Amino acid sequence: MQHVQCARCVRCGREYEATPDVTTCQCGGILDIVYDYDYIRRTFSKVNLEARRDHTMWRYRELLPVEPETPPTPLRVGWSPLYEEPRLAEQLGLGKLYVKDDGQNPTASLKDRASAMAVAKAREAGAHTIACSSTGNAASSLAGNAAAAGLKTYIFVPSRAPKGKVAQLLTFGATVISVEGSYEDTFELSKQAIDRWGWYNRNAAINPYLSEGKKTVALELMEQLAWQAPDYVAISVGDGCTIAGLWKGLKDLYAIGFIDRLPRLISVQAAGCCPLNRAIETGEPWRPMEENTLADSIAVGVPRNADKALMAIRESHGLTVNVTDEEILAAQQLLGRTCGVFGEPAGVTGTAGVKKLCEQGVLGRNDTVVSVVTGNGLKDVANAIRACGEPITIPSDMGRLLEAFDQRGIRVE
Amino acid sequence: MQHVQCARCVRCGREYEATPDVTTCQCGGILDIVYDYDYIRRTFSKVNLEARRDHTMWRYRELLPVEPETPPTPLRVGWSPLYEEPRLAEQLGLGKLYVKDDGQNPTASLKDRASAMAVAKAREAGAHTIACSSTGNAASSLAGNAAAAGLKTYIFVPSRAPKGKVAQLLTFGATVISVEGSYEDTFELSKQAIDRWGWYNRNAAINPYLSEGKKTVALELMEQLAWQAPDYVAISVGDGCTIAGLWKGLKDLYAIGFIDRLPRLISVQAAGCCPLNRAIETGEPWRPMEENTLADSIAVGVPRNADKALMAIRESHGLTVNVTDEEILAAQQLLGRTCGVFGEPAGVTGTAGVKKLCEQGVLGRNDTVVSVVTGNGLKDVANAIRACGEPITIPSDMGRLLEAFDQRGIRVE
Repeated sequence: MQHVQCARCVRCGREYEATPDVTTCQCGGILDIVYDYDYIRRTFSKVNLEARRDHTMWRYRELLPVEPETPPTPLRVGWSPLYEEPRLAEQLGLGKLYVKDDGQNPTASLKDRASAMAVAKAREAGAHTIACSSTGNAASSLAGNAAAAGLKTYIFVPSRAPKGKVAQLLTFGATVISVEGSYEDTFELSKQAIDRWGWYNRNAAINPYLSEGKKTVALELMEQLAWQAPDYVAISVGDGCTIAGLWKGLKDLYAIGFIDRLPRLISVQAAGCCPLNRAIETGEPWRPMEENTLADSIAVGVPRNADKALMAIRESHGLTVNVTDEEILAAQQLLGRTCGVFGEPAGVTGTAGVKKLCEQGVLGRNDTVVSVVTGNGLKDVANAIRACGEPITIPSDMGRLLEAFDQRGIRVE
Repeated sequence: MQHVQCARCVRCGREYEATPDVTTCQCGGILDIVYDYDYIRRTFSKVNLEARRDHTMWRYRELLPVEPETPPTPLRVGWSPLYEEPRLAEQLGLGKLYVKDDGQNPTASLKDRASAMAVAKAREAGAHTIACSSTGNAASSLAGNAAAAGLKTYIFVPSRAPKGKVAQLLTFGATVISVEGSYEDTFELSKQAIDRWGWYNRNAAINPYLSEGKKTVALELMEQLAWQAPDYVAISVGDGCTIAGLWKGLKDLYAIGFIDRLPRLISVQAAGCCPLNRAIETGEPWRPMEENTLADSIAVGVPRNADKALMAIRESHGLTVNVTDEEILAAQQLLGRTCGVFGEPAGVTGTAGVKKLCEQGVLGRNDTVVSVVTGNGLKDVANAIRACGEPITIPSDMGRLLEAFDQRGIRVE
């Protein structure tokens, strides 16, 4: 990989060769893939990108840490739609609002970007089996992307993972171990098993390539915005890997001159589980928290990618905001009714944060904001139903229909 | 619409002006939109299509029945991935197999194509409210596409519709009427309400524009195959509107010279509800059937688009095949494990039919087949779980993991 220099520890700075199976630093720190931006500038331009017909994450190959001969992964990951939402912007009192619906990915979440990268690197490493622990989406995306590539998967999920996600895993043929305990307990057991059997490791804070996959969401949204950077990009934060990837992508584009300024990040966590935002807000080191939120994908009390995430928020002069479960469900309804976008609770948490910052007057008419929806609402139907109630149930009878409308105060126009 | 000549009854041949709100013929027959192919040939070429950057169903505007000034609908509908599946082809004993995953649409089914068209035509008609009855997917797609466009929806579903689909409707802000009865009962009540209040009608067999939206699946798959027609295109059949749309698209392309031969259709129904296939197989008129299948989207005992569907199957010298619920769930697992594609039961019914025809020796090594997956498995998680069982549930303990693997005969390599 001529365009990759090394993998560097974000804590102590030690450098490693960027082999396909490199994991963490001796010091325990997480590694970051370091690129030769001068080389990339010479080989990659907006013009050659524009001519490309590949509308997947692999269209940005010059910025991805894979060998030239590594094949793209089989499923169509990436190039999710970016919608301009003038009606919602108006309603919130924002200048401009864009929603990037990353629930439109093969297994219905942003995590497909990381999992596709894991599959590509596992192939480079000659591995036939990949494993991970996950609150659900990393797992289902790994299972789907690996199945399409003919690789075997072992997947550890906390037993609270919604049924939709578990059904995906099993359908994709993964061996699924449902761990009675927290995400932390799940992670620990997966680590032991991976050490024991030598599987390729797709745990996000261990494998430095995953945030490189996730960063493609930033590359795309900037290309979709014709390289005009917005003021803010809002996203939900759990483990920390996604916001770190988002920031990496933005910095890559800045480094090679594709954008001339960097947006500020908006890190949105659930009020019931916000260890990273609390660290930013208090200026103290992050400390574990309980996992008290229905937004299961970001219910991460011990974030594994705290270092990269905190660095990203700080470097970008980012904002933090924490939202209650009620605010999350309200944002789900708002996005559905106004934009036709159905996100899972963690998926719409970024938008809930944007709404709250508008209400607080932090964001307003002069701001252009991109809100990333990270997963599809079909993954967690129980919570959606909880938020929106039940339909009108009647027999096939016009009299009963009129009665039901009357009772509910529905005036048909 | 210079490229549209009229709307013609498929039963009696009577012609109507193609106004935005035209419905059925006086004789009760369904209308078909008739194009001026000579005009289209002069204005539309593969070369101008290739240059287009719009990767949605609206890239085929020259073949769609909308006014030049009608805006494209807001959600990104269409251009779903077409995957070549060499491993599954090998396993089934087929020459070549392609899977078009139409679950990759904004509301996760092929029906988004019809609903986007309905929204476009409702706007042309100056309507602010759209209504339909549906087993689920037509409804959720209408609710989502209408919400994004700022239109109001009234939606009638049979009370058996899976919760995932109802949750989508409610989240998209539709007024949902859940009818205790069959699809037929649901349809009847919706018809009365639409007549009473004058809503724009998105019922598939009433509104002739919907199959024109659905036909874009055929336009896409042929473009994705570089205009090389496969031998067969397999799809699940319920109401009949989808297979009719598929065939219309193929015939359009043949009429304007984009393809030089027509594939044969494979109409796949559930064994427990196959009135259309039975009509083809017996040569008799179709008769209602009970709705005995878990594939809810095609559990249609009284198909509303029988005329167009039967004509399509016959004109294409099509094959019919009926599959049991067990065969449907087996196909769901097969697509998941081998291709990383998670389809709902009705979504994978086409593939179940292809598998059965391979086993019967009807299809084989000389055949190239496209199988369309019409909806995402996340829409109906309960049935997926029924098919694939439960995960291994244990505490976070290596000893217990080894024990569990042992008990299940899992040998880790």
